[in-house]
Amino acid sequence: MSSIAELTDLVRAFARDRDWEQFHTPKNLAMALAGEVGELLAELQWLTPEQSAAVMKDEKLGPRVRAELGDVTIYLVRLADVLGVDLIQAATDKLEDSGRRYTVEAARSSAAKIGRDHPSGS
Amino acid sequence: MSSIAELTDLVRAFARDRDWEQFHTPKNLAMALAGEVGELLAELQWLTPEQSAAVMKDEKLGPRVRAELGDVTIYLVRLADVLGVDLIQAATDKLEDSGRRYTVEAARSSAAKIGRDHPSGS
Amino acid sequence: MSSIAELTDLVRAFARDRDWEQFHTPKNLAMALAGEVGELLAELQWLTPEQSAAVMKDEKLGPRVRAELGDVTIYLVRLADVLGVDLIQAATDKLEDSGRRYTVEAARSSAAKIGRDHPSGS
Amino acid sequence: MSSIAELTDLVRAFARDRDWEQFHTPKNLAMALAGEVGELLAELQWLTPEQSAAVMKDEKLGPRVRAELGDVTIYLVRLADVLGVDLIQAATDKLEDSGRRYTVEAARSSAAKIGRDHPSGS
Repeated sequence: MSSIAELTDLVRAFARDRDWEQFHTPKNLAMALAGEVGELLAELQWLTPEQSAAVMKDEKLGPRVRAELGDVTIYLVRLADVLGVDLIQAATDKLEDSGRRYTVEAARSSAAKIGRDHPSGS
Repeated sequence: MSSIAELTDLVRAFARDRDWEQFHTPKNLAMALAGEVGELLAELQWLTPEQSAAVMKDEKLGPRVRAELGDVTIYLVRLADVLGVDLIQAATDKLEDSGRRYTVEAARSSAAKIGRDHPSGS
Repeated sequence: MSSIAELTDLVRAFARDRDWEQFHTPKNLAMALAGEVGELLAELQWLTPEQSAAVMKDEKLGPRVRAELGDVTIYLVRLADVLGVDLIQAATDKLEDSGRRYTVEAARSSAAKIGRDHPSGS
Repeated sequence: MSSIAELTDLVRAFARDRDWEQFHTPKNLAMALAGEVGELLAELQWLTPEQSAAVMKDEKLGPRVRAELGDVTIYLVRLADVLGVDLIQAATDKLEDSGRRYTVEAARSSAAKIGRDHPSGS
């Protein structure tokens, strides 16, 4: 198993074998994706930034974070399959778009200010 | 651009070029991932199941859903990069684990009951 | 127990008694809130709209949905306490603002079209 | 406006006036709630814990965080109304339940260890 395409096939077969395709509307899958992301947040919520950076070295939390990332990936890949969206292409297009909106120069200048002075939501 | 590995490199360079690595703790990236999933939910929230199944044919909503999926993928790939997790492997492992917990026979029987009789959260 | 103010006091004492105030930054509490909302979504994700409307009559799911709403309320009230925000006033202000943006006439006309014709994300 | 009951009435009238009741299934409202929580996370995601603790003093971010809390409250209150759940009672019951599971003594001891030694997801 090495690519999104292969994983997509595997997840599709998993759902079909269990008669779960009837539940896999985009709406339901988006909710399931959000539910799994919620479980990921729950693993990280009380950690300091430093603890979160070292979480994979924690023998109890590391495997749990990895498993949640697995769940998130499964539902994301399944949702994209049902919608007919190429995730890598959608991400690449979005990144190009963001590159135009946040130029390197403006972003570096802003990041320096955020790091030094004050909070920012952007 | 065709693989998660290539996208990972692209996103990493994007962050480094803008001095954004300082903000990319696992905790912060998990929040950003959840924020993007929230935007995806917002696009689908008022749709019927049938409307959600046809959303990519909607000339206004289709591109928006695709863009949100791109954003979700970007943050998921970035988070996995920072944590050193192979998303495809984590998903495959989780799927094998789920396959043991939800056997085909038990799942089909349960799905038939859910579809016919009553709601279920599982 | 009947008001948000009383619940706020109760949750504050609960955290203080357990030395949990050190973990209750707005950032951490917002993550915890999102985690609980994720659990709520998980209870509803595979239901049809009709099944979701009847969920409180389900003897298994009803209590679980109620418990998740309790958790969401606890973290929302705690977050507002830490930030010094009056939730009822913030909601009322936002509703007045929304009332100006979505007038009754425009909203009814748009709702009629959405119900009849096509999906909408707004 | 001072109580959840009054806010509930206001939000109910707001929806009825606009013919939005047709969209307000528990499922859809839970998605809308999650979407608003996602917007709240987005305001806090890049802040340090210290910056998040001071966010209400930021003249740009403070009003945005307050507005997002207002939106979250609106959808939570609306969802509880549609489900017939008393949020304050559900939260109080849940808190009593948590009080039995996390006794003051055990929680203080665990919190001391978490603060000093290592991360924990609980």
